[in-house]
Amino acid sequence: MNITVWNEFRHEVESEEIKAVYPDGIHNVIAEFLSVDHDVKTATLDEESHGLTDDVLKNTDVLIWWGHKAHDEVADEVVEKVKQRVLDGMGLIVLHSGHFSKIFKSLMGTTCDLKWREADDKERLWVVDPTHPITAGLGEYIELEKEEMYGEHFDIPAPDETVFISWFEGGEVFRSGATFKRGNGKIFYFRPGHESYPTYYNKDIQQVIKNSVIWAENQQTPKHKYGNSKPLEEISKK
Amino acid sequence: MNITVWNEFRHEVESEEIKAVYPDGIHNVIAEFLSVDHDVKTATLDEESHGLTDDVLKNTDVLIWWGHKAHDEVADEVVEKVKQRVLDGMGLIVLHSGHFSKIFKSLMGTTCDLKWREADDKERLWVVDPTHPITAGLGEYIELEKEEMYGEHFDIPAPDETVFISWFEGGEVFRSGATFKRGNGKIFYFRPGHESYPTYYNKDIQQVIKNSVIWAENQQTPKHKYGNSKPLEEISKK
Amino acid sequence: MNITVWNEFRHEVESEEIKAVYPDGIHNVIAEFLSVDHDVKTATLDEESHGLTDDVLKNTDVLIWWGHKAHDEVADEVVEKVKQRVLDGMGLIVLHSGHFSKIFKSLMGTTCDLKWREADDKERLWVVDPTHPITAGLGEYIELEKEEMYGEHFDIPAPDETVFISWFEGGEVFRSGATFKRGNGKIFYFRPGHESYPTYYNKDIQQVIKNSVIWAENQQTPKHKYGNSKPLEEISKK
Amino acid sequence: MNITVWNEFRHEVESEEIKAVYPDGIHNVIAEFLSVDHDVKTATLDEESHGLTDDVLKNTDVLIWWGHKAHDEVADEVVEKVKQRVLDGMGLIVLHSGHFSKIFKSLMGTTCDLKWREADDKERLWVVDPTHPITAGLGEYIELEKEEMYGEHFDIPAPDETVFISWFEGGEVFRSGATFKRGNGKIFYFRPGHESYPTYYNKDIQQVIKNSVIWAENQQTPKHKYGNSKPLEEISKK
Repeated sequence: MNITVWNEFRHEVESEEIKAVYPDGIHNVIAEFLSVDHDVKTATLDEESHGLTDDVLKNTDVLIWWGHKAHDEVADEVVEKVKQRVLDGMGLIVLHSGHFSKIFKSLMGTTCDLKWREADDKERLWVVDPTHPITAGLGEYIELEKEEMYGEHFDIPAPDETVFISWFEGGEVFRSGATFKRGNGKIFYFRPGHESYPTYYNKDIQQVIKNSVIWAENQQTPKHKYGNSKPLEEISKK
Repeated sequence: MNITVWNEFRHEVESEEIKAVYPDGIHNVIAEFLSVDHDVKTATLDEESHGLTDDVLKNTDVLIWWGHKAHDEVADEVVEKVKQRVLDGMGLIVLHSGHFSKIFKSLMGTTCDLKWREADDKERLWVVDPTHPITAGLGEYIELEKEEMYGEHFDIPAPDETVFISWFEGGEVFRSGATFKRGNGKIFYFRPGHESYPTYYNKDIQQVIKNSVIWAENQQTPKHKYGNSKPLEEISKK
Repeated sequence: MNITVWNEFRHEVESEEIKAVYPDGIHNVIAEFLSVDHDVKTATLDEESHGLTDDVLKNTDVLIWWGHKAHDEVADEVVEKVKQRVLDGMGLIVLHSGHFSKIFKSLMGTTCDLKWREADDKERLWVVDPTHPITAGLGEYIELEKEEMYGEHFDIPAPDETVFISWFEGGEVFRSGATFKRGNGKIFYFRPGHESYPTYYNKDIQQVIKNSVIWAENQQTPKHKYGNSKPLEEISKK
Repeated sequence: MNITVWNEFRHEVESEEIKAVYPDGIHNVIAEFLSVDHDVKTATLDEESHGLTDDVLKNTDVLIWWGHKAHDEVADEVVEKVKQRVLDGMGLIVLHSGHFSKIFKSLMGTTCDLKWREADDKERLWVVDPTHPITAGLGEYIELEKEEMYGEHFDIPAPDETVFISWFEGGEVFRSGATFKRGNGKIFYFRPGHESYPTYYNKDIQQVIKNSVIWAENQQTPKHKYGNSKPLEEISKK
């Protein structure tokens, strides 16, 4: 499977504190643990076409998206191409602050707004769909000692499947793992991963991302034709 | 309840054949049967701001949308305002060829494409959710002697509720009544109503539209706050 | 609307501590606040037929169910009759420990098991479906100073709608408000209400129960016929 | 993967006409095409414990169920054991008239009733979920020249996913492919396969059944603990 990990890659360049956590960028940490099983490329905001040329998109089975402070700098033209590829069958994994990315909002049709707080809350992600392949290999919950808090109401359409619900020390809950199908594409939103915490080094978090790319791949050739269509049955009255 | 019935209102002006079916436009037929129980206004494409000024939108509890050949002429700015009102709690009933309207596609996030045929197919809309208030007063199905065919695959997100499934004489099926929640707004897509057939004079079709506006009204004040949020519990570690 | 509030009514008789909270039983507290708007009867385990005679069931539009320590004493024959009435269109509100009642398990098809703890946890029920009529009149969340904890995994089918998610002080989350349609009946499960806490005196909790009975009423006449059925279309090949 | 194909196996023994279609029984036709990729056993009603001993169930990853005229002869005790295995993680594929089996009704909680007609209707199963792995390798629809008709309303809970919707020549529609999760188990109901038609020799139908067993297998170890549970967080007020 061909995976492309897209990262805004600004925090890690502009802040010494974040650079200390992810010296080569979040994308490279994710790419590394996925590379054991898949062909993985990375792409970042400041590359030409944000690294998402037609050729790259065409050859991507599953795209992973991390963005935060520069959502507005992603060109509408590129967003439109990514959206078309999702509808044509490319899987999409949206991480953390990607909830506010143009691509996610465009596929959801809602504001995707939420509550947030940077205060080192403990987070516990409870598995609420024990049959789901995205939860393979996990225990009852994933615990993260410190994370940014995201709280309900999360303004998304009712998910096709709610896989994780988070508990936060400060008193909030959040639908932290949610699946959506759009066109021929499968989408997974996964909450954790604020840039200032070493979340993507956590083995359970890595397991979820590994599981999710396998789930999101749609190996099928699009089967449907649209538009003007002749009758399959002879219409008797004619 | 304040209802606004929006209609493109072009077919009825430009074609004698269509004018014969709806002399004053589709919007006025719908407005008339809804006026028995509600305050109903109409708005059309060629009015200033398409008849959807800020004031009109602010005072609309449920908006009904019929469009077909001129979706592209609806200004993006107006679409954006309608979308914001839906997310803020205005109900939206999308009829027939409105599946390809900018507002519906923007709220769904998909192409909303489908199969179609103008060949006087008989249509039978089976009720598949007998508890749904939108089906109150109906029998097992609604039968329309002649309609345009719409066939699967209908490229929409999995509906929150599938209320009707249509059978067509020429061999196709279609999810003809589907509900969606987006933000604080409730949306109902209802398939029938090609401009060349007298569908909106049918008593069962009128019943569905009457039921749907009541269902779509969200009388609640938006309750959620978004953004930076203080902890509700004292965080022990601090 | 005719409402019947069913209560096991054992804790309040057998324990002085519980009697102090609900001197006339949980059923009478619930009946009282519902009686302002509806015709309300009560029924309890130790009455003949548990108070649920054919006549009572036939004349009940919405049944509320609270049980805990004596689920096994509810006669299978009565459970079967209640189930049939739900499938025929009676609404059902299942409260708290009713998750383990025969009627709820029979309608869900799963174990309905969960985690629990009696330790005076604070509970906060977050509204996650702001369009839902069951949440009318509420703020962002309901807070209960002390309650029994119920934690995930809650072994139920994926709800048709998840209305509330609870946060508990001790570290758990729970899908505390969930709707299900079965046959012609609408079902709402609502978590709070352990017998040792004054939860049913809380105004927000009362608001939810008031909203839920209105939501659960199905005023429609069952419309579907089942069994051997003649063709609606002339089958051409014959 | 270990698959057990269960068949009532009465029609094929008692009727010469049916025997002509399935000389060795429906189970052996299904077992044969699944045996290419999996370890497949069969079990039938008239075997001891209906062939579903504790040992067989324990070693079955996915169970396929075909029954029709003798649902009542299946022992409640065996049904209870099968149900427990599904809730513990065994996949279940319910075929055609198995909609009225004790095991399916028990897992659904509804009557599972429907309309039916034996009149050689043409059936066309439209794919309405093009991302679903159960539809891999299929075109837009599956066409069966002659089948028994099943029509809506099909009295099941709203499926987690609706994969196929059937069109019937005589004027009906039906949700012919539907998925449900119950406990740790995944369930797929698939409509076609009346005993008097050679449906299970059809390559598309075989493809669906092949796809469905792979989808239904839950390789995960049950991860959840239920019952009394200590707090994960120190409760501050104590």
